[in-house]
Amino acid sequence: MADPDESPVGPSMTPPRSEATALDPFFIPRGCAVVGASRDPAKPGHQVLRNLRAVGHLGPVYPVNPRERALEGWACYPDLVSIPGPLDLVVLCLPATTIPSVLEDVRCRRRDRQDVRAIITTAGGYAETGTPEGRTRQAELEAFCRQQQVLHLGPNCIGVIDTHNRMDTTFLLGTAHQPGGISFLSQSGAFGAWILQSWSSRPRPTGFNRFVSLGNMVGVDLVQAMTYLGQDEHTRVIGMYLEGYPDPRKLLLTAARVAQTKPVVVLKVGVTPAGRQAACSHTGALAGEDALYDGAFRQYGLTRVKTVEELLDTLQAFDTLPSPSGNRVFLMTHAGGPGVYATDALAALPEIEPARVTGATRQALVDILPPFSAVCRPEGHLDMTASGTAMQHAMALELLLGDAGVDAVILLDLPTLFLSAEALADHLLEAYGRASSRQPPPKPFLPCLMAGKWVAEGRRRLEEAGIPTFETPDRAARAFANLLRHRTLRQAGRRALTLPFPAAGGEAGRRQTLTEPEVYRMIAAEAIPIAPWRATGNPAEASVAATELGLPVALKLVSPDLPHKSEAGAVILNLAQADDIPAAWERAVTAARAYRPGLRISGGLVQRMARGQEFIVGGLRDPQFGPVIMVGAGGLLAEYVRDAAWRLAPVDEDMAMAMIGELKAAPLLEGVRGGPPADRAALARLVAAVSRRLASIPDLVELDLNPVMVGPAGAGCQVVDALAVRLSPE
Amino acid sequence: MADPDESPVGPSMTPPRSEATALDPFFIPRGCAVVGASRDPAKPGHQVLRNLRAVGHLGPVYPVNPRERALEGWACYPDLVSIPGPLDLVVLCLPATTIPSVLEDVRCRRRDRQDVRAIITTAGGYAETGTPEGRTRQAELEAFCRQQQVLHLGPNCIGVIDTHNRMDTTFLLGTAHQPGGISFLSQSGAFGAWILQSWSSRPRPTGFNRFVSLGNMVGVDLVQAMTYLGQDEHTRVIGMYLEGYPDPRKLLLTAARVAQTKPVVVLKVGVTPAGRQAACSHTGALAGEDALYDGAFRQYGLTRVKTVEELLDTLQAFDTLPSPSGNRVFLMTHAGGPGVYATDALAALPEIEPARVTGATRQALVDILPPFSAVCRPEGHLDMTASGTAMQHAMALELLLGDAGVDAVILLDLPTLFLSAEALADHLLEAYGRASSRQPPPKPFLPCLMAGKWVAEGRRRLEEAGIPTFETPDRAARAFANLLRHRTLRQAGRRALTLPFPAAGGEAGRRQTLTEPEVYRMIAAEAIPIAPWRATGNPAEASVAATELGLPVALKLVSPDLPHKSEAGAVILNLAQADDIPAAWERAVTAARAYRPGLRISGGLVQRMARGQEFIVGGLRDPQFGPVIMVGAGGLLAEYVRDAAWRLAPVDEDMAMAMIGELKAAPLLEGVRGGPPADRAALARLVAAVSRRLASIPDLVELDLNPVMVGPAGAGCQVVDALAVRLSPE
Repeated sequence: MADPDESPVGPSMTPPRSEATALDPFFIPRGCAVVGASRDPAKPGHQVLRNLRAVGHLGPVYPVNPRERALEGWACYPDLVSIPGPLDLVVLCLPATTIPSVLEDVRCRRRDRQDVRAIITTAGGYAETGTPEGRTRQAELEAFCRQQQVLHLGPNCIGVIDTHNRMDTTFLLGTAHQPGGISFLSQSGAFGAWILQSWSSRPRPTGFNRFVSLGNMVGVDLVQAMTYLGQDEHTRVIGMYLEGYPDPRKLLLTAARVAQTKPVVVLKVGVTPAGRQAACSHTGALAGEDALYDGAFRQYGLTRVKTVEELLDTLQAFDTLPSPSGNRVFLMTHAGGPGVYATDALAALPEIEPARVTGATRQALVDILPPFSAVCRPEGHLDMTASGTAMQHAMALELLLGDAGVDAVILLDLPTLFLSAEALADHLLEAYGRASSRQPPPKPFLPCLMAGKWVAEGRRRLEEAGIPTFETPDRAARAFANLLRHRTLRQAGRRALTLPFPAAGGEAGRRQTLTEPEVYRMIAAEAIPIAPWRATGNPAEASVAATELGLPVALKLVSPDLPHKSEAGAVILNLAQADDIPAAWERAVTAARAYRPGLRISGGLVQRMARGQEFIVGGLRDPQFGPVIMVGAGGLLAEYVRDAAWRLAPVDEDMAMAMIGELKAAPLLEGVRGGPPADRAALARLVAAVSRRLASIPDLVELDLNPVMVGPAGAGCQVVDALAVRLSPE
Repeated sequence: MADPDESPVGPSMTPPRSEATALDPFFIPRGCAVVGASRDPAKPGHQVLRNLRAVGHLGPVYPVNPRERALEGWACYPDLVSIPGPLDLVVLCLPATTIPSVLEDVRCRRRDRQDVRAIITTAGGYAETGTPEGRTRQAELEAFCRQQQVLHLGPNCIGVIDTHNRMDTTFLLGTAHQPGGISFLSQSGAFGAWILQSWSSRPRPTGFNRFVSLGNMVGVDLVQAMTYLGQDEHTRVIGMYLEGYPDPRKLLLTAARVAQTKPVVVLKVGVTPAGRQAACSHTGALAGEDALYDGAFRQYGLTRVKTVEELLDTLQAFDTLPSPSGNRVFLMTHAGGPGVYATDALAALPEIEPARVTGATRQALVDILPPFSAVCRPEGHLDMTASGTAMQHAMALELLLGDAGVDAVILLDLPTLFLSAEALADHLLEAYGRASSRQPPPKPFLPCLMAGKWVAEGRRRLEEAGIPTFETPDRAARAFANLLRHRTLRQAGRRALTLPFPAAGGEAGRRQTLTEPEVYRMIAAEAIPIAPWRATGNPAEASVAATELGLPVALKLVSPDLPHKSEAGAVILNLAQADDIPAAWERAVTAARAYRPGLRISGGLVQRMARGQEFIVGGLRDPQFGPVIMVGAGGLLAEYVRDAAWRLAPVDEDMAMAMIGELKAAPLLEGVRGGPPADRAALARLVAAVSRRLASIPDLVELDLNPVMVGPAGAGCQVVDALAVRLSPE
């Protein structure tokens, strides 16, 4: 029976066929002109031709240079207009200032020949400079491309590479055109170069399929490129270097659809300090662009990585490892200390569990391994000592892969006199082949042959045979954890794609702080439990209300001028007797008037005291992300520890449960100091309900429910204070 | 005037001269025998001879093998006894079972010739196996060495290397004997091999001085080796791979003394989950071996690193970078995306600040760099775009190093067509040389030439000239942060060395939980402020006490059977009127009797309510570490976030301030929600006083002061609850 998680996504998620071919002119052009082609190796226009040769480009190439007859074996043309055949792609290797005249030639061809379907502009000097000239230049380029209906990539980019279709329009040094299943989108040409040069420097160059440098995104942008790669049959996993995108919701939605069929791995940079906007709520103070992106990546099923090493390892793991059937990892080594180091690294990753093998496997291991080997001490770990031979490695690997309790094997090895990396690689490959054919499907096997150049040939042999190798056990473990995590992420993304998707932009207007009763009335339309309350006009009414609501109660002054009531002394908690209310009212008024002279007081809110664990639920309407929802730990410390999880609104209850699970304070809900577990489900319901409310009220720009008291399981939770900012028309 | 921090350490810290030569027989032996020497490349005894040749060992070498006449050009001997000349060192390359007979020969030589001063045993099969045979074998070896008064290294080790004295007794593949200032101590031979092979695989092999593999530490142990390397004139920085040490206090004290003159960088593995002992206190629940080691490393001035990459980078940085005069780092690059990535990495390190250059420097940079360069946008950052030439790099570097606002420069570069790593390296070296000679002392310069093999030669040139290079900007930044941190660490270590040093081991006895009044009386001898309290025998006495102490008060039952009073309902807070006391007493008794039937109640403790930020101060007498002190965030969440800082007791107030500064909750003390700052100094005084108390009462095994309420600055802090476990004689 098919895993429901594997079933195809609904029709709304399948982009039209045209999207799958939209960017073909860049990758499989009928004719490619290189303007600025040159004999001088210091010129980009030289290296582009070199790379087209190096990749073995099959289509016609037209170097454009009036002073040359031929370059790299291709006949030169004085200008674009004189090129005979059909011309799909023009690569501009020229400074920004000389480009307008070439665009005139493009215009002529578009008019006379109806070709030139795509342009790549490598030059900088556009909007990225932040200068008025640069911005004007970019606007002109954009207008040209729109008017001519021509595809455009750049400016300020290094173009595209396609190992399958043998295309390379970059001027990069050091690209190995090794085919593979990784495609990479980069908002920085230099970052792309870093990745490509890192790939080509490995013992065996890492294979990849397509590379797209997006530059300033005039024309082709991240969304279009992501959609295209999502449809590309040779792409198994997509990597992305992301600085930012003007409409993050659109990008996330696109990437989420793609991530349903191929993992999307994102390195997001530009982590700015939190506290993104002038906010009067705690929610606002906790928000930050990075926190919102982070929550959104989790929500839409994208794998976020933090370092370039993790990016490289994770892409390779997704491309080459078989899909794991579980998270039980066995660690085998002949190196004691590195084994302990690796055990620490594995223990730090919650996604991974140590594998437990059967007694039979354990005994078989003991039987074949050197006398002082430590087998399954600790569980999921095997140290065969430095005297373990290549054959013993192979036998142990085969036994472990054959045990049903093992989902994956990580191996650590250092070359020794007695054990060359090459011999080890050969034996391991045989053993892995035997185990995989006897008991398909193959299991993930992650060898870490450490020690730099001394293992280069051994690693090359393994990778040539399709087994990825890793630099260190921590890096292998993290890449594998990302593989495991993808399963959960994809499910989250699948759910997120079924939810409504409100528009982003906040409306304009005057910010107006609502009083607590106003907030309660605004949110009351949904299933949001609020501790029983009553708005009262005077102490006598409040006393009556207290008795009717049930004691003890809290008394809170209601004032449009007092968003932070507690600070002002306008909140009195734990009033156990109705008779105490008038004095409390008096005390609160005195304190609040001292805190803010001239304060308007419109009454007193009486609310039954609620008990439970304190949490905070809040939301914002972010200018970029639109409505967002947050749940966090309550209390003072939480503000300082910044323990909060974010998503774009709305979320469903499952997603809300996942958010709660991300909190450092999550264990509080499992019961504290021997107490019963708290009503996590009720908190999740509340979060989901609040998120729907946020998504449905466009002028609700800030909302704090703080605290929310979460009672024991089954007892629900209750909001006991609230703050909101609404936009009212100017 | 001399920096007081640079002044020599007191006489008590200078080990005797004999310690400086104690291990010389391993490194500069008059005569070295290799027992088990072999012609077979698969035997360790072959590779030891190869390595002695490779390192260019100058002293006499005596291969011992009855079946060979000569090996690697050295004459063979049939046994140890027949070796003519003086023989300082015997390297045993034999299986454990054959060693006893060789030791008999050693015994003969000791008796007849009075030589053989040191033995290295490489074999495994001793206590590390965890078997009775292994333990017996190790005990016999230990007895032999003690009886014969012979130095011993191992068993289960790979020996020593010394590049200065040209010694290498290891059987490792892949050691480059490049001299340098790093020495390394390893509790794992394989981990040592990993380091050595990583060093030898770099574009230019990393230089080092001495390497010691300690194995099972029969004879030479970590303390002795650390002391020896501390005295070694060619060692500038010491690295250590640490699994554990039976007397951590002794190791820490030794390493702390060494770290006053040379940095000690520790990779500590074997991170076990917290909750080290059956404990009834929160302090006990928060303790864990790793947390104690971590606190102790900070206390004694050792640099802890977490990954093998950080270990390699930090050792290299300490060995080769000039000491920084400040933490203001300028980041220069020609690569936009990697620059943003690096900015994130720098911003994540609190040790580092962005450098601000003068307007003149900024203008000069703008003048010399390509037109679209981003200069000081953001501050401390320069992106000269991909068109920056090697000359422009050099000029920019010289300008930056010449600016008084710059303490160090990190450079990121990727090779391009226009800019080869070699040309860049040459230009940078010239510029660095000019800047350093014009304006000594030289400033740290950390180039990251990225992109693997494409930059190998460029990196080699820089390192040949003494400039360390790094793989990624994050790794460079972290190594530099460790350099900066060492200054603070060394000061901490200096203070720690002046404090008394109580013995570790806890005494035996029956654990006895003390009641709150008993704890207060026990700790009251020191300056530990406790919220005013009174032990009372009945409700009437309690009412009187409440009035005298000042209202509001808390009432707490006193019972030897009730360590966790709050859970039992035996604590009633916020009693505002003396008349309320009798009813509260009654309520508490009822609740506590329901919680634990048959409970003994010896009275009621009345205590004036105190306000402030909640913290916890606690301590333990740990079996390994002895008395330890902890300060942590108070409240429920803190227990779950595990926000605590540890030190060995006693600590002084400065150290206590540093502990408080490590807490995630530290910002709470700066004032919350617009309130005044809290009395951090008072909390530090309390921590120091408690630590002295812990150190002076050997039978006090657990202490929780929880919570401690910290009032506004100047108002002090007060303990409002306490729990302790004391050992009483059986």
